[in-house]
Amino acid sequence: MDERSMLVSEVRVTPILMEDAPLLNRHGVHQPYATRCIIEIRTEGGEVGLGESYGDQEYLDALRLLAEHLPGHSVTAPNRLWGLAAEVLRPDAVDPRLVDEQSAGWLFGRANLSRLHGIAVSAFEVALLDALGRTVGLPVHALLGGKVRDRVDYAAYLFYRWDEHPTPGAPRDDWPEALDPAGVVGQAERMVDEYGFRSLKLKGGVFPPEEEVAAVEALREAFPERPVRLDPNGIWSVETSARVADELRGVVEYLEDPCLGVSDMAQVHRRTGVPLATNMCVTTPEDVPGAFAAEAVQILLCDHHFWGGLVATQQLAAICRTHGVGLSMHSNTHLGISLAAMTQAAACVRGRLHACDTHRPWQGEDVVTRPHRFVEGAVAVSDEPGLGVELDREALDRLHRRWLDSDVRGRDDVAAMRAADPEWTMPPAPRW
Amino acid sequence: MDERSMLVSEVRVTPILMEDAPLLNRHGVHQPYATRCIIEIRTEGGEVGLGESYGDQEYLDALRLLAEHLPGHSVTAPNRLWGLAAEVLRPDAVDPRLVDEQSAGWLFGRANLSRLHGIAVSAFEVALLDALGRTVGLPVHALLGGKVRDRVDYAAYLFYRWDEHPTPGAPRDDWPEALDPAGVVGQAERMVDEYGFRSLKLKGGVFPPEEEVAAVEALREAFPERPVRLDPNGIWSVETSARVADELRGVVEYLEDPCLGVSDMAQVHRRTGVPLATNMCVTTPEDVPGAFAAEAVQILLCDHHFWGGLVATQQLAAICRTHGVGLSMHSNTHLGISLAAMTQAAACVRGRLHACDTHRPWQGEDVVTRPHRFVEGAVAVSDEPGLGVELDREALDRLHRRWLDSDVRGRDDVAAMRAADPEWTMPPAPRW
Repeated sequence: MDERSMLVSEVRVTPILMEDAPLLNRHGVHQPYATRCIIEIRTEGGEVGLGESYGDQEYLDALRLLAEHLPGHSVTAPNRLWGLAAEVLRPDAVDPRLVDEQSAGWLFGRANLSRLHGIAVSAFEVALLDALGRTVGLPVHALLGGKVRDRVDYAAYLFYRWDEHPTPGAPRDDWPEALDPAGVVGQAERMVDEYGFRSLKLKGGVFPPEEEVAAVEALREAFPERPVRLDPNGIWSVETSARVADELRGVVEYLEDPCLGVSDMAQVHRRTGVPLATNMCVTTPEDVPGAFAAEAVQILLCDHHFWGGLVATQQLAAICRTHGVGLSMHSNTHLGISLAAMTQAAACVRGRLHACDTHRPWQGEDVVTRPHRFVEGAVAVSDEPGLGVELDREALDRLHRRWLDSDVRGRDDVAAMRAADPEWTMPPAPRW
Repeated sequence: MDERSMLVSEVRVTPILMEDAPLLNRHGVHQPYATRCIIEIRTEGGEVGLGESYGDQEYLDALRLLAEHLPGHSVTAPNRLWGLAAEVLRPDAVDPRLVDEQSAGWLFGRANLSRLHGIAVSAFEVALLDALGRTVGLPVHALLGGKVRDRVDYAAYLFYRWDEHPTPGAPRDDWPEALDPAGVVGQAERMVDEYGFRSLKLKGGVFPPEEEVAAVEALREAFPERPVRLDPNGIWSVETSARVADELRGVVEYLEDPCLGVSDMAQVHRRTGVPLATNMCVTTPEDVPGAFAAEAVQILLCDHHFWGGLVATQQLAAICRTHGVGLSMHSNTHLGISLAAMTQAAACVRGRLHACDTHRPWQGEDVVTRPHRFVEGAVAVSDEPGLGVELDREALDRLHRRWLDSDVRGRDDVAAMRAADPEWTMPPAPRW
């Protein structure tokens, strides 16, 4: 290979704001606009690689700090990003919130240095793999050991929601409110009609558990052939979790993070036998041994955005396979570059993969020229070079200008909720 | 990519016999000739990929059976070999010895279906990755997440040995006998002089433990800066293992397989605190959870030949990293294709990698045109396309003709020992 052409010559990290829907969760409600950042890597050979990651200001700063050190780095060696991240993203070089294990408010686990490094590596690893694949004409899956499936199943990600944001002038979509079992079933029907999803997931933690149990039971009745999951984001006590698990045994495929922490999760599983999934109590490699030993987790929800990328996802899948733990994928609000990356990674995972989460249907916008289509709930695995997506420069510019013109610099579902309920504060955990 | 050019058009599995030295171990002595097989895969695009694996008749038969199903398979999808192996190499389709968990005599763990599949996948995975790398102009390490080191350290693999085989007409090398501490130190001095090895490993299990302890202490004294290991291949009792561990605490870097089985290994570690390595009690993914939970293993000796290949090696390394278990590499008698594959895989392993084992210096022959050189005990990581080796067709033909002209069809160190000692039988375990 021409080694020089494989070197990174330029890196751009572009923050954007994308429209989001008024989706409810345990913290409050999604803001009208969500931050995100788009990564472009250019090589000496003139190829471009794309990545997509978090856009909160503190992450943006960290990613930009790492980006300064990337020129000269070879796209053939994404593994070397780990050493670079450890060197550059030291605790004293980043926003303290990123490394404070006590920081509250995260919907995907504790902040710590290990996770920060996983996030930073992932953002650029995906872009390096995309550039490498484009340079040599290989799809990313061929750089990950090869695909074992040609389509990746996703789940309908159902949310309690309002029909519109409480903020004046906020963007609107055409989905009606869903605040009770009938609303949730209606939302699921449209999701299934439009996208063909064959699994259903309801984001819970919004209403008292009995209302959410009723919604899940209504989904089960309306879609007897489709596995259903419920995810209250750890807002229940062990008692409540065990009670709900008993009620939903045989109704749900699994419960996601009914409560917080390995010890409580393990108790619930021990008492009920119901499979539990998590993207909250196991979010870094350090969490794995204790959680698996305690049998706190039966399905791990991997997210390449914080687990260190697409190679690390294959490795995490191997860890789960070795320990007899199931695998699915977690999702935050994202666009098409992330969906392409998730699909490439999921295509290579050997063994069973539960239908992956994706927020994608809730985003009307995209930064790729040909947004993905869900057919029978699945995305076809691209065999095009790299991730198989092209950047829509105009869309990126528009979403970046929106970021420049706004003062939204992070995610705050609690503050967004206050627009409707001025008394709202972060609910305690457990709330119920 | 031109998908058609990536398809396998032809596969050759060529058994060979290579000269081997009279190296002693717990079973007996190496035979004058060792079996091996060389794999060549040709793609529709005209590229060739190389692999090297076991040559025992029962493995040869299994590999050839799988090889029949490879044409039409894409070199971009080595992960799909696992499904193919499971389909083709069913228990009733292979030699019963390959899947009999009770079969004795293996120096690298129990036979079972899982390990057979790992062996078969590995043999062809390496060849597919080589062909893929050559096709697109990438070194194999760029198909494994990328190298994190430019040279891979190997250890001097010291053996008790005779100066010549007891069999008339057997090949001879120019190494003298080594049957006591002075002989072992002399062997180490030459190994260090010629190859620069910075770690030393003694294959034990040959003489009573006190003699082997004396040899290790002599090595330590002669090479105070070089980590030393001792590997008696599981021939000691728990009592003996614990006694030796106590004697060699602080002298050895680690003890390899002092005794057999997870439970006994765990006892020895618990009683002594001395780090233990294994390539015998953890040889398939199924062995990992129990062994790690019991803290039976502090260093896992991976061998891509039976762990499923180079991608699987990266995954096993991640499993070890996640559980705080160290990693090194195991070796059987092998040639340059295997050394190239080991080096590519080792180059990509993040974090510490203990100097890897290799028998390579004991083999005077090779099937690659430019045999590897050890400089300061390390092999430079090739950046050439694929594995970075070329087949020496003439050498392959010669070694294959030797196989055709011989009736050696497997490894039998017990039988080889009988040439010198007609009363010799497989020693019991524990022997001491």
